[in-house]
Amino acid sequence: MAQVYERVALIGLGLIASSMFWAMKRGGLAGEVTGFARSPETRETAREIGLCDVVYDDIHDAVRGADLVVLCVPVGVMGSVMEQISGSLKKGATVTDVGSVKRDVINNVMPHLPEGVQFVAGHPLAGTEHSGPRSGFAELFDNRWCLLVPAEGSDPAATAQLRKLWEGIGSNVEEMDADHHDRVLAVTSHAPHLIAYTMVGVADDLRRVTDSEVIKYSAAGFRDFTRIAASDPTMWRDVFLSNKDATLEILGRFTEELFALQRAIRQGDGAHLHDYFTRTRAIRRGIIEAGQDTDEPNFGRGNGSNT
Amino acid sequence: MAQVYERVALIGLGLIASSMFWAMKRGGLAGEVTGFARSPETRETAREIGLCDVVYDDIHDAVRGADLVVLCVPVGVMGSVMEQISGSLKKGATVTDVGSVKRDVINNVMPHLPEGVQFVAGHPLAGTEHSGPRSGFAELFDNRWCLLVPAEGSDPAATAQLRKLWEGIGSNVEEMDADHHDRVLAVTSHAPHLIAYTMVGVADDLRRVTDSEVIKYSAAGFRDFTRIAASDPTMWRDVFLSNKDATLEILGRFTEELFALQRAIRQGDGAHLHDYFTRTRAIRRGIIEAGQDTDEPNFGRGNGSNT
Repeated sequence: MAQVYERVALIGLGLIASSMFWAMKRGGLAGEVTGFARSPETRETAREIGLCDVVYDDIHDAVRGADLVVLCVPVGVMGSVMEQISGSLKKGATVTDVGSVKRDVINNVMPHLPEGVQFVAGHPLAGTEHSGPRSGFAELFDNRWCLLVPAEGSDPAATAQLRKLWEGIGSNVEEMDADHHDRVLAVTSHAPHLIAYTMVGVADDLRRVTDSEVIKYSAAGFRDFTRIAASDPTMWRDVFLSNKDATLEILGRFTEELFALQRAIRQGDGAHLHDYFTRTRAIRRGIIEAGQDTDEPNFGRGNGSNT
Repeated sequence: MAQVYERVALIGLGLIASSMFWAMKRGGLAGEVTGFARSPETRETAREIGLCDVVYDDIHDAVRGADLVVLCVPVGVMGSVMEQISGSLKKGATVTDVGSVKRDVINNVMPHLPEGVQFVAGHPLAGTEHSGPRSGFAELFDNRWCLLVPAEGSDPAATAQLRKLWEGIGSNVEEMDADHHDRVLAVTSHAPHLIAYTMVGVADDLRRVTDSEVIKYSAAGFRDFTRIAASDPTMWRDVFLSNKDATLEILGRFTEELFALQRAIRQGDGAHLHDYFTRTRAIRRGIIEAGQDTDEPNFGRGNGSNT
């Protein structure tokens, strides 16, 4: 694969940035990759494992001369990081991000965007429940979607070049407007995460009653919720606060449906429950056909090897 | 391993029965295994794939002479199946089941238990989102829990023998009383399943609005919910109707917590959200330490190979 950018700067060195780094190296997509993380421990770890060609202690050194700057920080601080680096950006550079919310990020970043620099927001739909510089791997984005949301009035050439990078990283790329992105993600990701967090929190309260049985007998269902609810707390706090309206709207619909199903249970309305569960089963087939998950049994963990 | 029962009858030939069969064969735990399923198609499939040594078209033939009869049917029909086979059971036989609810099953089965036959209820905590005779595999129960709930006044020797079978199948066995079982499972399995079904149902409604985007961009979170919500509709309908009180109680607590988190989002209370998410993350560690799941990234699906 051909080089797409001469110099790329990764700001924030967690799961996404480290996976991007290994994928860019795998594909020979960047001449040099610089990195910066706020925490000295993270920078130390990055240097130790060879994450980035150079890790700088000063964020300005990391972005200076970069053709592409990737903001891999929680969405709640995107604006202030942009404000901080604004004066050190090269003319003609592109800034992008990897946040899970787009309208709020664009609103917070754009006021600090210097003349002659493009902002093309981005969101790779990939992740694991692990975080930190050691959690990345080159294959994370392979065959997953990356959604690009070009800021109004940005240069289409900047978007085209960024698309080339993400395709080289392994992703399928689509463009979308910010509000639409935030509504779709509220359904497919944000509301489900809050629900999983809630259920695990309820179990935690009960654990004090039933000793360790909730953990000991954690079956499929709850066990899968705990994976989701193990995701990074700072990232998710920011997601919910930044995509407040869409998330609350979906949660409102969710509560409505849940009440209807609770009533069906209370009234012994088996037909209602059976119809509902048959309908949801069909969605699963759609997802497998869309190539977004595996059909392997036992949640792809291998046959019963969960030891 | 030594043979535990001379003759075992499996009633209902889905995921659990077929996995039990392959595990019993693997371990040489039963002399002969007979089988029965209500549907002719299922019996035909079972014969085709060698599931059971003999598959009978008549349930009475299947249980006649069996030392152990395993009821692998939805919990809503356990009582009527027991009533049906009652007259054909061998004196000295043990009857068990594999249902996800225990109080209701015991209440429905016991009135039909003939003199000289023992009932020891059982619940293997294992499963996948697949169902039917082809979905079983010998390793399903390896290192998973199997909870035994001996009926009041049953012979401890019957429980001891059944325990030996499940240990031979690969499970860790514990005894528990029925009400306690149903409360623990409401938290770890029943409420989470209803919640997953609900969220997927909400998305299904919205899909009509956003075309196929909900499926196309199904990220971690929702994707995992769809797996849970792909489970067998009849089985789960019966679970909710049979464990009504405990499930509704947990759902009540869940709704309470969800409202508190929704309020925190609405009010922008980031500290509350961050604390909550940090607390739930710790539960995940407990489950991994308890050996009930793998710590592999990307939900154990392998690195990005979700194609």
